[in-house]
Amino acid sequence: MNVEITDVAPRDGLQNEQSFVTTENKLKLIEKLVAAGIQSIQATSFVNPAKVPALADAEQVVAGLHQFPQCTFSALIPNLKGYERALLAGISHLHFMVSASEEANRRNVNRSQAESLAVFGEISKLSQRDGISLEVGIARSFHCPFAGTTPVQKVSEIAKTIRQLGDFPISLGDADGMAFPYQVVEAIKVLEADVGIAPHSLKLHFHDTYGRALANVLTGLQLGVRRFDASVGGLGGCPFCPGSSGNVATEDLLAFLEGHGFSTGVQMEKLLDAAEFAIQFSSRPYQGHLLRAMRPSSMMHH
Amino acid sequence: MNVEITDVAPRDGLQNEQSFVTTENKLKLIEKLVAAGIQSIQATSFVNPAKVPALADAEQVVAGLHQFPQCTFSALIPNLKGYERALLAGISHLHFMVSASEEANRRNVNRSQAESLAVFGEISKLSQRDGISLEVGIARSFHCPFAGTTPVQKVSEIAKTIRQLGDFPISLGDADGMAFPYQVVEAIKVLEADVGIAPHSLKLHFHDTYGRALANVLTGLQLGVRRFDASVGGLGGCPFCPGSSGNVATEDLLAFLEGHGFSTGVQMEKLLDAAEFAIQFSSRPYQGHLLRAMRPSSMMHH
Repeated sequence: MNVEITDVAPRDGLQNEQSFVTTENKLKLIEKLVAAGIQSIQATSFVNPAKVPALADAEQVVAGLHQFPQCTFSALIPNLKGYERALLAGISHLHFMVSASEEANRRNVNRSQAESLAVFGEISKLSQRDGISLEVGIARSFHCPFAGTTPVQKVSEIAKTIRQLGDFPISLGDADGMAFPYQVVEAIKVLEADVGIAPHSLKLHFHDTYGRALANVLTGLQLGVRRFDASVGGLGGCPFCPGSSGNVATEDLLAFLEGHGFSTGVQMEKLLDAAEFAIQFSSRPYQGHLLRAMRPSSMMHH
Repeated sequence: MNVEITDVAPRDGLQNEQSFVTTENKLKLIEKLVAAGIQSIQATSFVNPAKVPALADAEQVVAGLHQFPQCTFSALIPNLKGYERALLAGISHLHFMVSASEEANRRNVNRSQAESLAVFGEISKLSQRDGISLEVGIARSFHCPFAGTTPVQKVSEIAKTIRQLGDFPISLGDADGMAFPYQVVEAIKVLEADVGIAPHSLKLHFHDTYGRALANVLTGLQLGVRRFDASVGGLGGCPFCPGSSGNVATEDLLAFLEGHGFSTGVQMEKLLDAAEFAIQFSSRPYQGHLLRAMRPSSMMHH
C-alpha cells in the first residue's frame, strides 16, 4: 500500500442526513468498507447530539468497532467534552478541527481560532497521559463560503501553532469544493517550506462540488501527498446548501489511483458493493461517478 | 482570450437524444452560447439522418448560423457524402473523425482506419479547391470500450498520416471518459516529439464519466494545451450505455480556467443561462457540477 485512503462516509457522509441511519446500518456500512480493504475509517463524531442528531449514537458505533481489528478508526472531537466522551467510549485515534477562516470557525464551534487552538493545546496534553493519537484537520484551507479565498499564510500560521504543540498529522479540508489546483500547490509548498511538513505526511480532504476533486488529488500526488480522505458513494454535503456535494467518492478516487499505478489495498468490486449500500442512506442524487458508469442499474432511485 | 473553448453541445450533446430537438431550439441554444461569449461551436453533423435522426436537420441548422457572425462554427463529417452536403449547406469549417481503435472505427463508420484515412485524403484535396478548413479528431485516443487502453503509438501513427496530408489541427477524444492524466502527458509528449505537433495547437476532448475530466484538462494546461471541447450543461452520452456521461460541462471548465487565471471571453452568468436552457433537452440527470452548486433550483427536474 503506498496511498492511504481514509473513508469518512460514516462521519462526514452521514452527519447531515435528516433521517437517522441506525447504528446497525452504520456498522454494516463500516463492515462493507472493511471487507473492501479500507484500512482507515472516520467512524463518527463526539459532537453535541442536539446539534448533530445523525451522529447521536457515537458511543454505540464505537462499541461495535472491536469486530474490525484490521482497520484503524478515528472519531471527530469538537471540544474537551467530546474528547472525554471519546476516551470513555474507548476509541484511541481522534481528529480535532480548526477552521482557517475565523468566521467559519465561529459559526462552526462558536469560538475564535485562538480559542480553538487553546482547546487543542489542552487536549494534546491529555492525549499524552491517555495514550490517544491526535490528528488535526484545518478546515476551509482553500475557500470559505463566508470569507472567500483563504490566504495560504493563514493555513501556515495555524499549522505552525499545531506543530508547536507536537508532531500531529495535519489534514487540509475543502468542504465547499472550491479549491483550485494552484492553491493545493501553494499550500503544500508553503507548509513544507515554512512549517517543515513533509508532503507524504499531509492528508488532503476534497469535496467534488465543482468537479475539481480529482484534479486536486492529482496535484497532491504530483507533489508527494499519499493520504486522502474520501466518502464511499460520494456521501455528504450540507442539507442547508441545496447544491452542495459530498466528498470525492471513494470509488472514483480508487479508480484514479489504480490507473496511476498506486496501490491502496482496496478491492473495487467490494467497494462498489459498499457504495450501493451507502447511497440508500443519502437523500440526494448520487454525486460520484464510478457507480453510475459501472453499475447503472443501481442508479434506479438515484 | 488565451484558452479557446469549443462548445460541442449542439452536436455531441444532442446526437444521442431520442426525442428530437427542433431546429428552432437548436438555434436558440446556439444563440445563448454566442450571447455568453462562446466563440467556437460544433453546430451539427452531416451524418446519415437514418442513423442519427437527432441531427437530421443539419442543413437547416447551418442555414440559421449566418445570424452569428462573431462565432466560428464547425460541423462533423463522417465521409465524402457528408463533405458534399456540408459544402452545399455553406459551412466552411469541417471536422473529420478517425478512431485510434480499429474495432471502434469499424463499428462507427464501417470502415478500417486505413480506409478512413484514405477518405480523409480525398476530402483534404477537395477542401483546398473549395476553401474549406479541416480539423481531425482522433477518437478513442486513450481508451476504447472494445479494445481497452489505446497504445499511444497508435495515436502517433494516425497523427503522422494526417500531417502528411497537410497541417490540419488535431484533437484527441476520450468519449468514454476513461483517460488518465498519465496518458494525456504521454500523448502530448509523443505527438510533439514524433509528429512535431505543438501542444498549443492541439485540442483535447474529455468526457466526465469517471470524474476525471478536469484532472485531464489540468494536465493539458500544464503541458501547454490551450484548446478544449466542452458541452454546456454536460450534455451528451450514449443512450445504449446507461451509465455514460456527457462531455465535461462548459460551465465546470470555465470556472476551472477562470480560477487559474486563463481568459476565455465567456461570461459565467450567461453561460449558466445557456446551461439551464440546455438541460431541458437531456433525458439524463444533470452530470455537470456548477449549475447544481450555483443554481440549485434549476435542478428540480434533474
